[in-house]
Amino acid sequence: MSNGCIKGVGLGPGCQDLMSVRADRLIRGATHIAYFRKKGKKGHARSIVEGLLSEHVVELAMEYPVTTEIPFDDPRYNALLSAFYEQCVAQLVEISAAGHGVVVLCEGDPFFYGSFMHLYTRLLERVPVDVVPGITGMSAAWTATGAPITWGDDVLTVAMATLPEAQLLNRIRQTDALVVMKIGRHLAKLRRALKAAGREEDAWLIEYAAMENQRVVPLTEAGDRVPYFSIVLIHGHGRRP
Amino acid sequence: MSNGCIKGVGLGPGCQDLMSVRADRLIRGATHIAYFRKKGKKGHARSIVEGLLSEHVVELAMEYPVTTEIPFDDPRYNALLSAFYEQCVAQLVEISAAGHGVVVLCEGDPFFYGSFMHLYTRLLERVPVDVVPGITGMSAAWTATGAPITWGDDVLTVAMATLPEAQLLNRIRQTDALVVMKIGRHLAKLRRALKAAGREEDAWLIEYAAMENQRVVPLTEAGDRVPYFSIVLIHGHGRRP
Repeated sequence: MSNGCIKGVGLGPGCQDLMSVRADRLIRGATHIAYFRKKGKKGHARSIVEGLLSEHVVELAMEYPVTTEIPFDDPRYNALLSAFYEQCVAQLVEISAAGHGVVVLCEGDPFFYGSFMHLYTRLLERVPVDVVPGITGMSAAWTATGAPITWGDDVLTVAMATLPEAQLLNRIRQTDALVVMKIGRHLAKLRRALKAAGREEDAWLIEYAAMENQRVVPLTEAGDRVPYFSIVLIHGHGRRP
Repeated sequence: MSNGCIKGVGLGPGCQDLMSVRADRLIRGATHIAYFRKKGKKGHARSIVEGLLSEHVVELAMEYPVTTEIPFDDPRYNALLSAFYEQCVAQLVEISAAGHGVVVLCEGDPFFYGSFMHLYTRLLERVPVDVVPGITGMSAAWTATGAPITWGDDVLTVAMATLPEAQLLNRIRQTDALVVMKIGRHLAKLRRALKAAGREEDAWLIEYAAMENQRVVPLTEAGDRVPYFSIVLIHGHGRRP
C-alpha cells in the first residue's frame, strides 16, 4: 500500500466561492481533512468549508497549545510550538501510512505566511506532499477598497505590524504601495509610523476582507480596536495611460 | 432597462482549475466576454478559458495598438494607449447600455498590475463595475518552487525588472523575500543587481508558473533568454519554530 498524499490546500480569503475550482473539488472529495484551530473554537479554516464536506469525512483538528503567558521571544515559546508541529506531523504521517490522503485546510495561500509551512517542511521527504495556492487575504482586501493596489512599475511592500516602529517607518517611507498584516494590538504603533511618514491619510483599514462582516474604512476613521483579521494598505499611483 | 455590469474577473495564473469557483461560474454563464490581446494572436486570457464558454457567447477582443516602435517614455506612447483604453471603454459602455453584463477576462488578479485597471477607472461612475480577485502569478511561482515565500515577520518586496539597476539593487539589499516580475529583456540588468547584492545564488526563475510549460530553475542555470511570463524570486527565511 502506498502512502497517501498530504495536500496543503489554499482556501482563499474566507468566502467559499473564492476558493479555487481545484480546492473545491479536493475538499468535497476528501476522506480525511486536517486544520489548525485555537482550543475551544470551531476553527476559522473549518468554518470556511462548512457544507462542502462529505458525510463520512474524518476530521483532525490540530489545536494550538496555549502560548499567551509565554513571551514571544522566550525560547520556551518556540519549543512549545515546535513540539506541537511535530505531534501534528506524526498524526498526519500515520494517516498517510495507512494509505489515506489528507486535505489540510489553509486560510489564504499556504506558502504566504501560512501555518501549514511548519508542517510542510517537516513532512517533506517522509510522505508525498503537495500545495494548492489560493487567493490571498490581501488580494481580497485591495479588491474590497474598489481601487487597484499597484500600477506600472510600483513597488509593493508587504510587512507585518509586529515589526519595530522604526522599521515600519522605514518601509512606509520607501514604498509605493503598502500592505501591512497582523494588525491587532499593533495598531497604535503602525499609526505613529504612518503619521511620521506623512501617509496616515492615504491608508485604508480592511477587516474580514471578502467575508460577511467585511468592513472597509479610511484608517483615520477606524477607531482604536481592530481584529486580527485586519489589513492596512496604501494604494500605489504608478504610470497609468 | 438597466445597465449591465462590467466584471473584471481574475483568471488566476493560467490553469483552469486554479480560477475561483466564482470566476468559473461567471465565465460559464457569460453572454458577453471581453479580453485584451496582441494583434494577430489568440490572446492568453482567452486561451485560459477555452472550453468553458457558452456556445452563443459574444466575444470582444480588445487588440493593443502596436507600440514597439515608440519608446516607452515618449508622450505618444501614453497618448496611443490612452486612446485605445477609451475606445475599449466606449465599446463596453455600449454593451452595458444595451442591458448586457460583460465578463472581462483578467490574467492573475485584476487589481495587481493588471490591464483591466485602466478600463476600471474609466468605467467607474458610468456603468456598474465589479472585480473578482484571482490567484496571482507570483503565488503560482512560489508554489512551483516547492518552498514557502514568507515566514514569520519576513518583509516581501514585489518589484518590476523594468526599474533602474540601482533601484533594483537597493530593493534586493533591503528585503527578506523578493518577487521580481516583467523579466524578459531586463534579465541581464536584474542579474547584475542580484550579484552586487550577493543574492544571485538564492534566486529562482519560474517561467509559465502553473501552466503546462512551467519551468523552475535556479537563476544561475536559467540561461540568457526568458519569456515575458517569468518571475524571479528569493525565499524569505524568517522565524520558524
